[in-house]
Amino acid sequence: MSLPKFQHFETTLFSSGVYEFAFNRPHIYNALNQEVYQEWRDALLWAAKDDRVKVFLLTGRGKYYCSGQQLYRPNVHTKEGNAADEIRRNITKGVVTALIDFPKLIIAAVNGPAYGFAVTSLALCDVVYATPDATFTTPFMKLGFCSEACSSYTFPRIMGNSKANEMLLMGRTMTVEEMVGCGFVSRTISKDTIRQETLKLAEEAALFSPEALKVTKDLIRHMERPLLHDMNDKEMIQLHTRVRSPESIASLNAFVDASEKRRAERQAAKSKL
Amino acid sequence: MSLPKFQHFETTLFSSGVYEFAFNRPHIYNALNQEVYQEWRDALLWAAKDDRVKVFLLTGRGKYYCSGQQLYRPNVHTKEGNAADEIRRNITKGVVTALIDFPKLIIAAVNGPAYGFAVTSLALCDVVYATPDATFTTPFMKLGFCSEACSSYTFPRIMGNSKANEMLLMGRTMTVEEMVGCGFVSRTISKDTIRQETLKLAEEAALFSPEALKVTKDLIRHMERPLLHDMNDKEMIQLHTRVRSPESIASLNAFVDASEKRRAERQAAKSKL
Amino acid sequence: MSLPKFQHFETTLFSSGVYEFAFNRPHIYNALNQEVYQEWRDALLWAAKDDRVKVFLLTGRGKYYCSGQQLYRPNVHTKEGNAADEIRRNITKGVVTALIDFPKLIIAAVNGPAYGFAVTSLALCDVVYATPDATFTTPFMKLGFCSEACSSYTFPRIMGNSKANEMLLMGRTMTVEEMVGCGFVSRTISKDTIRQETLKLAEEAALFSPEALKVTKDLIRHMERPLLHDMNDKEMIQLHTRVRSPESIASLNAFVDASEKRRAERQAAKSKL
Repeated sequence: MSLPKFQHFETTLFSSGVYEFAFNRPHIYNALNQEVYQEWRDALLWAAKDDRVKVFLLTGRGKYYCSGQQLYRPNVHTKEGNAADEIRRNITKGVVTALIDFPKLIIAAVNGPAYGFAVTSLALCDVVYATPDATFTTPFMKLGFCSEACSSYTFPRIMGNSKANEMLLMGRTMTVEEMVGCGFVSRTISKDTIRQETLKLAEEAALFSPEALKVTKDLIRHMERPLLHDMNDKEMIQLHTRVRSPESIASLNAFVDASEKRRAERQAAKSKL
Repeated sequence: MSLPKFQHFETTLFSSGVYEFAFNRPHIYNALNQEVYQEWRDALLWAAKDDRVKVFLLTGRGKYYCSGQQLYRPNVHTKEGNAADEIRRNITKGVVTALIDFPKLIIAAVNGPAYGFAVTSLALCDVVYATPDATFTTPFMKLGFCSEACSSYTFPRIMGNSKANEMLLMGRTMTVEEMVGCGFVSRTISKDTIRQETLKLAEEAALFSPEALKVTKDLIRHMERPLLHDMNDKEMIQLHTRVRSPESIASLNAFVDASEKRRAERQAAKSKL
Repeated sequence: MSLPKFQHFETTLFSSGVYEFAFNRPHIYNALNQEVYQEWRDALLWAAKDDRVKVFLLTGRGKYYCSGQQLYRPNVHTKEGNAADEIRRNITKGVVTALIDFPKLIIAAVNGPAYGFAVTSLALCDVVYATPDATFTTPFMKLGFCSEACSSYTFPRIMGNSKANEMLLMGRTMTVEEMVGCGFVSRTISKDTIRQETLKLAEEAALFSPEALKVTKDLIRHMERPLLHDMNDKEMIQLHTRVRSPESIASLNAFVDASEKRRAERQAAKSKL
């Protein structure tokens, strides 16, 4: 049986049973768009069922782990824009659902800065390692959004209220030392060796009885699973309203204006040369 | 519309929407009594509703953040004393209720040592910063009391069992380093700059969409809110019994005896000069 | 009334009301077998009720705190072996039940390395101190077992997901620094003084009102108690299946083979001298 192919991820199924799944759009800092979410969800759904996959290793190529959702000029006021937004959010929600239900070990190797959904989704992975230059930013308030990927539930439980709220309600960027300190990340591994070290750890885990791993992960997660699904629902309902709010639309337009201005200036500077 | 006035707090509503609310009885280390609790509760209830308030900043004036409940010689054996005790506890309970339900961002800037209710109530604030000389003491067992302000629920969840139980069951004083280490406090800020730095952070948060903040805080807290109210009820029922117990009455009397003796000695020493 | 006697524990009831209960099979690293579990459970059930006991201090004699379950060549395929396994697990489950329900303060003084059940059961104690050489290992996956003693519930809540899963799903040994860092252990105390220091801390707590301690511990634990009992049930049902699985039987046999080989080599080396 052949392996599924993905356009935006570099993937390898090692003979050990470790499946490496790496964000692979380094030219745009591994930003997320609808297609990326869709591939991510499909990969999780496939890997959950294919017996050849024993451990899922999530990582990124290039300087960034993942810069989060790619931001567009909002067009939720048109019928088509509105419908497209619904579809996008359902796919995003599907990634969260797939992470909540994923029955095998998922290890995340955060190889650089992470933003937004790329941060919140880490709390649904089982184990997180990160490089010394990794940073963790959830700029939801700046954009008039709200918390997602069950971070409303997972962040306070992992980090304690104070740091969770600094991230979710105040948008503060956390260093990797802080994230290790509060238990979000297990430890830092140097940029040079993170791939090989986490592959080795994943391979060791792939030697364990898949059934023992599955049963234990289920014991750990079964009580929280309904709460997590419920939170995913509630967050997505709120996000639907948030992205249609005048504040959020204004913030997004301002963000895209600034990006376009920077790009135009760079091109003007280039054409002058 | 004018602002409410408080006798025991220094308050400022900045044009940014930050409402600074500072314990202001430094001569008695910002101790809490019935009137202070009442003003605190009233301020929270008002600030929750007044649209001019976007962020609530809780802090203290002087060397201490707050030395906790002012301890009196217990008179729960008289009908009047008993009734007064009931009223006092209902007001205290009302502060906890108001903190659980508070819909906006509350930041605490702990400017020095904190005791008892001043510590437990911090766990119901969203974000906590503290000065390097801050200490955190919950001497409930020494006084024959029990845990309150939902600390039975919040402390183990934030700090882990072991440190929470050291505080609640053994009365151990924690340093600010330990409280940062276990995630209760986000970080230390020097005594000289804590006011200005936390005002700045609060002002930045006051720029965010109030609706986005409200929705996200609600996502974070909605699951726990009924559990917290239930815990507040249960703790207050137990506290009612505890303060009437012979051990607690003996401890309180011994405490007040010792205080009065120290005061008498100080006055005798003065009159000798 | 006389005190219960235990063969595998060194026990002292101090006049303060502190009951010291120390694993005392140092020649086999305080390993656990059916008799040890039975005595442990009986001691907890007795101490819960005897008013002379105010604080329970759990510790070990020798270099190790406790090396966990003594591993036998599995014989679950015979009728007798199967029945014996059931009995053993019911007794183990009884220790967990007794720890969940224990109404008084339990302090653990971890005097050296800890393995398996000796680690997971610490999370059901109220406060944990440990020596600098203590290590914490839960090799469940290596043996094809699953998480037990409610560690599926307690570990993620205390340590955060990432470190909990490293222990439970990947079998990583944690140092005492890491366990202090994540709040599992309150602090390290040197090997020379841990007994005397923890006895002193326990004695101070034994001076508190037993009723105040009982009420506060109950406030802290009452919400989680049904979840913990339910988790104990679920883990033990899964463990019943796990120990009968071919992978687990193969792992155990390999472990016992290796032990026997080492023992034979040591004896051969001795007889050569």
